[in-house]
Amino acid sequence: MKVGIIGATGYGGLELIRFLYNHKEVERLELFTSSEEGTLFSSKFPHLANMYEQPLQKIDYDVLSQFDVVFASTPSGVSTDLFPPLVNRGPKLIDLSGDFRLKNPDSYETWYKKTPPPPEIVEASVYGLTEWNERAIKEAALIANPGCYPTAVLLSLLPLIKEKCIDPSFLIIDAKSGISGAGNKPSQTTHYSEANESLSIYKINEHQHIPEIEQAISMFAGVETKISFNTHLVPMTRGILSTSYAQVMPGITQKQLTDCLQAAYEHQPFVRVVEDATSVGTNRVKGSNYCDVFAKLDERTGRATIIGVIDNLVKGAAGQAIQNMNVQMNLPQTLGLQVVPLFI
Amino acid sequence: MKVGIIGATGYGGLELIRFLYNHKEVERLELFTSSEEGTLFSSKFPHLANMYEQPLQKIDYDVLSQFDVVFASTPSGVSTDLFPPLVNRGPKLIDLSGDFRLKNPDSYETWYKKTPPPPEIVEASVYGLTEWNERAIKEAALIANPGCYPTAVLLSLLPLIKEKCIDPSFLIIDAKSGISGAGNKPSQTTHYSEANESLSIYKINEHQHIPEIEQAISMFAGVETKISFNTHLVPMTRGILSTSYAQVMPGITQKQLTDCLQAAYEHQPFVRVVEDATSVGTNRVKGSNYCDVFAKLDERTGRATIIGVIDNLVKGAAGQAIQNMNVQMNLPQTLGLQVVPLFI
Amino acid sequence: MKVGIIGATGYGGLELIRFLYNHKEVERLELFTSSEEGTLFSSKFPHLANMYEQPLQKIDYDVLSQFDVVFASTPSGVSTDLFPPLVNRGPKLIDLSGDFRLKNPDSYETWYKKTPPPPEIVEASVYGLTEWNERAIKEAALIANPGCYPTAVLLSLLPLIKEKCIDPSFLIIDAKSGISGAGNKPSQTTHYSEANESLSIYKINEHQHIPEIEQAISMFAGVETKISFNTHLVPMTRGILSTSYAQVMPGITQKQLTDCLQAAYEHQPFVRVVEDATSVGTNRVKGSNYCDVFAKLDERTGRATIIGVIDNLVKGAAGQAIQNMNVQMNLPQTLGLQVVPLFI
Amino acid sequence: MKVGIIGATGYGGLELIRFLYNHKEVERLELFTSSEEGTLFSSKFPHLANMYEQPLQKIDYDVLSQFDVVFASTPSGVSTDLFPPLVNRGPKLIDLSGDFRLKNPDSYETWYKKTPPPPEIVEASVYGLTEWNERAIKEAALIANPGCYPTAVLLSLLPLIKEKCIDPSFLIIDAKSGISGAGNKPSQTTHYSEANESLSIYKINEHQHIPEIEQAISMFAGVETKISFNTHLVPMTRGILSTSYAQVMPGITQKQLTDCLQAAYEHQPFVRVVEDATSVGTNRVKGSNYCDVFAKLDERTGRATIIGVIDNLVKGAAGQAIQNMNVQMNLPQTLGLQVVPLFI
Repeated sequence: MKVGIIGATGYGGLELIRFLYNHKEVERLELFTSSEEGTLFSSKFPHLANMYEQPLQKIDYDVLSQFDVVFASTPSGVSTDLFPPLVNRGPKLIDLSGDFRLKNPDSYETWYKKTPPPPEIVEASVYGLTEWNERAIKEAALIANPGCYPTAVLLSLLPLIKEKCIDPSFLIIDAKSGISGAGNKPSQTTHYSEANESLSIYKINEHQHIPEIEQAISMFAGVETKISFNTHLVPMTRGILSTSYAQVMPGITQKQLTDCLQAAYEHQPFVRVVEDATSVGTNRVKGSNYCDVFAKLDERTGRATIIGVIDNLVKGAAGQAIQNMNVQMNLPQTLGLQVVPLFI
Repeated sequence: MKVGIIGATGYGGLELIRFLYNHKEVERLELFTSSEEGTLFSSKFPHLANMYEQPLQKIDYDVLSQFDVVFASTPSGVSTDLFPPLVNRGPKLIDLSGDFRLKNPDSYETWYKKTPPPPEIVEASVYGLTEWNERAIKEAALIANPGCYPTAVLLSLLPLIKEKCIDPSFLIIDAKSGISGAGNKPSQTTHYSEANESLSIYKINEHQHIPEIEQAISMFAGVETKISFNTHLVPMTRGILSTSYAQVMPGITQKQLTDCLQAAYEHQPFVRVVEDATSVGTNRVKGSNYCDVFAKLDERTGRATIIGVIDNLVKGAAGQAIQNMNVQMNLPQTLGLQVVPLFI
Repeated sequence: MKVGIIGATGYGGLELIRFLYNHKEVERLELFTSSEEGTLFSSKFPHLANMYEQPLQKIDYDVLSQFDVVFASTPSGVSTDLFPPLVNRGPKLIDLSGDFRLKNPDSYETWYKKTPPPPEIVEASVYGLTEWNERAIKEAALIANPGCYPTAVLLSLLPLIKEKCIDPSFLIIDAKSGISGAGNKPSQTTHYSEANESLSIYKINEHQHIPEIEQAISMFAGVETKISFNTHLVPMTRGILSTSYAQVMPGITQKQLTDCLQAAYEHQPFVRVVEDATSVGTNRVKGSNYCDVFAKLDERTGRATIIGVIDNLVKGAAGQAIQNMNVQMNLPQTLGLQVVPLFI
Repeated sequence: MKVGIIGATGYGGLELIRFLYNHKEVERLELFTSSEEGTLFSSKFPHLANMYEQPLQKIDYDVLSQFDVVFASTPSGVSTDLFPPLVNRGPKLIDLSGDFRLKNPDSYETWYKKTPPPPEIVEASVYGLTEWNERAIKEAALIANPGCYPTAVLLSLLPLIKEKCIDPSFLIIDAKSGISGAGNKPSQTTHYSEANESLSIYKINEHQHIPEIEQAISMFAGVETKISFNTHLVPMTRGILSTSYAQVMPGITQKQLTDCLQAAYEHQPFVRVVEDATSVGTNRVKGSNYCDVFAKLDERTGRATIIGVIDNLVKGAAGQAIQNMNVQMNLPQTLGLQVVPLFI
């Protein structure tokens, strides 16, 4: 397979490279850029010395159309323009940005404050939440890879909503992310001395992942709801942990919550159902494509705490993108992704 | 004033020392211990060299009864036995543990799994949430200093519950703390390599601060409710940020939420009402006695996000304890506590 | 006293504010800027809410000449132009940048790659290493406040060089700093995700503090030498630890090393001689104006390890600047600076 | 291949597991323990759920003698007793502790304060610095895997000493390590709140890696010398950076330093010669088996700064051990170890 990455210099791109380096079906991996053509990749990223000594290439559709798979890992708004000319011209396309995720163009405009991509392209694109959409992904020409937060939130909540274990009408989702989620562009918010040793909240009720989560709840669980969703910046590099709260449906027990999660994922290699709260932590998945999910009933209040844990750069971005590529290319889902979490 | 600290070697004790060193009404500060008698304090804590060259003293009631104020900053269960003999024998007593906080002895036994202190002592003790209980604190012989989480949660929620801005029947409180909250005793959970770069959850629905928060909501806002309350361990040393979620009462606006908080605290030196979410962060209060509170209405869902931010070791422990001492001793609340947050 | 700060928005400026807030001889503190005139200071730095609600002022020499003391905490090259018109016009001047530190203009040009300030101003300025230059500081109109690294290095090495305990001809100085030393301007190097969890080296043999250290060794110990000096970036916000290596002079013992340090600093409030290596750590001085010094002889090699530890933003910048102001104004050195290190 | 790990619960053991999971010649991997027999490994280490669901086994020589390779990753002093009965009984042995590294039993006793292993076993063991001892490793029954610090120090210094580029008589080695080097046992030194945000020094002139480094300089470069060697604890989990200082030999240029390093390692897959100081950083090797080496001449002083950078748990422990196993088993050195550094 020949694989290309557009936007290889971002953190999503670097993680694609990290995993594709060990993907045995990838024969050639080439890196494309709109602005740093000719730059030797390993001089920009010395951790890749001895591995990627090639220069960044100019984006060229004739070249790209010869590839089997092309990933775009670009800032929001870029693949809106970049990907449409490549659709159905040869390569399978996987977009890591939010550009093709929202089916409703008004919603895209409202939350992203950007012009939406051509509606027929959005329509034909497939939402790449692998565990919930495998059949469609297999046939997809263009995959809209899920956002990092939605991945953690949806994998933990969808089974419980779909199987009517929890009441979806009052869903509180309190999410926390490591700082790599903000990307590689320096800013005051991500300046070490100001981000270190501080916990903050951002985009209160305004995160563009809100409509993505609501759309997926509708799509996969058949429920329309308005969620409360907030995001916190945690002084660590990697990891997302989402803590959700909901009333359980009458009569639902702890065992039913756990069983429901287990039934949903028993054949899924990358979702692990955790049964002990002390096993919940972002270091348990660090560097890997795992998502750990957990649900705990509070008998006193009749409410459940539901948790999803991922590495935001892996299952929340590059890892899931490769998992989707594997599905598209009829390869085992786990190819190139079977790594043990770092833990420390 | 002569002031004694029992349990000076814990983090609460060290912070008492840090602030009392600059408290101009404190003439003598002496440190007591049950186990390390005679140890030179600055040899155990070299950061105090040149400042506290005195040895730790044995706990002696005759000596302690000569003091004006005695703080206990000991593990839970210790002041249950230690403080009763000192009540009304001279010194004002301030307990930083949870031993005297819960008025209901059954509740104490249930949540703390320990034998409760003598009921008459608990009855006579005063809950030291300074901004909400100043009058009682002024007269108190024994103060039960609030827990770290309850301080952040209550200061942010109480005005909105009391003034009926939010519906107290479905309160979700998602709290996050730096690791110093776990105290100074090494454990696997607080081992650097395992706590660093990881976010985890603990004591799901089981934290002993739950009944403390519910009791205070009843006491100060006249409302009985059962909260959902979870606590997360954040890889940083200091800081608590609590994010609470509730439906607002019909017709309540953003302005009313902010006004309600401002009205509650306009004469309070240590509670600041924040109006801009980008100003919310634990580094804004680090090392200081401030509590920043913030409320934001989500028009889309009709729910509010309500935030309280403190330094867990200061406003959440030693700082509030000194603030209470000042009230008890008829001194300005701010004495010894007027320090600028470190920010970085 | 009326005190002004030019460049209040940098980390040095913020630390000046933090300490001057509690300096009882400072009646008015005003903040000046060249670029953000009119900005409400607490809106830019919300941790100062309730404390500094004033707007930033335009730099105006007529206004500044009415002040008792003016600090400049500006990037290198700025006070070269800014301070000369104020010299001998009224206020005592204290410059936290490197502009006036090097007496040799060629050296300034070589290491700073900038045009040096007027030679007569440089000549008249006084190097503010308080413990070694107090008499000159008392009379100074303009103080060149020492660099952060030189402070740690010089306070630990000067007594041993001056008293001929170590051989100054082969001095290896391996210094390490927290990231706040890089200032508040975002960059890739200080971007959280890339600085976090990584130790790096920078400006190998090229740091502009090299000539400053060599000049001070000449000035205070009468020895000309060329040092090896490297600087490392440590993933923490505050703190400098310098580890120096030198052959001890024949016959010199461990006791003589320690005695030499103690003799040098026995009457100095802010330098502490540490005798136990386990007491050496940047958290022992965090947030305070202390410098801890330590020397250890290796009998096996005849070489000594000599350590200096400071908080780079306090003793390495704002704290020492205020200490110098106190000396200039005939106040006790410790005024406003008597704070206990945070430790945690 | 059947591979066993004794001491799988330490950080070295966990890293062995992480890499061996993807080693295609390892058919069975079994975990042995002296104290936690029967414990389900993934219940103790939940990050291994779905991967290592097997129980820890009791150490049994009859079982172990059926294995192809046995690693010991145990505290110092343990394999002294544990390994001798297995020597030449079947499996290749690789010891990650310091027990078999020092050829001189007196030296072992002096620096380790423990009884040395049987001299004939020590004599027959081979020091596993792969790049410098490959031929002997190929034939070895028992490998003494190098210490973390010696690996970084020796790989950077050996070529320059052997080729007489630097003067070995006055070698200053200032080493820095992340906290995982202290192992997984909780202590005050590694307690998060006290290790975080602090840089400290430990074992001044007393580290047991000193004789190991000196012995290897003698063994591989034919030079007897006494080094100065200090170790610092850096607030990060992984990574070692050693900064060494030496006078260069007369006439030696920057180009010769770099060429010397490049010549030494041009055919070595895991040592990279860095030419730009901005590329030096522990995040460049994080999670990988790379060692980056760098040398910079200071024309002004005639001294060189020489740097070695590794991930202490990989090239400094488990990675190098597997590299040695590959050599012993006549496999390509890189098998199972070809992973891209994490960088962030």
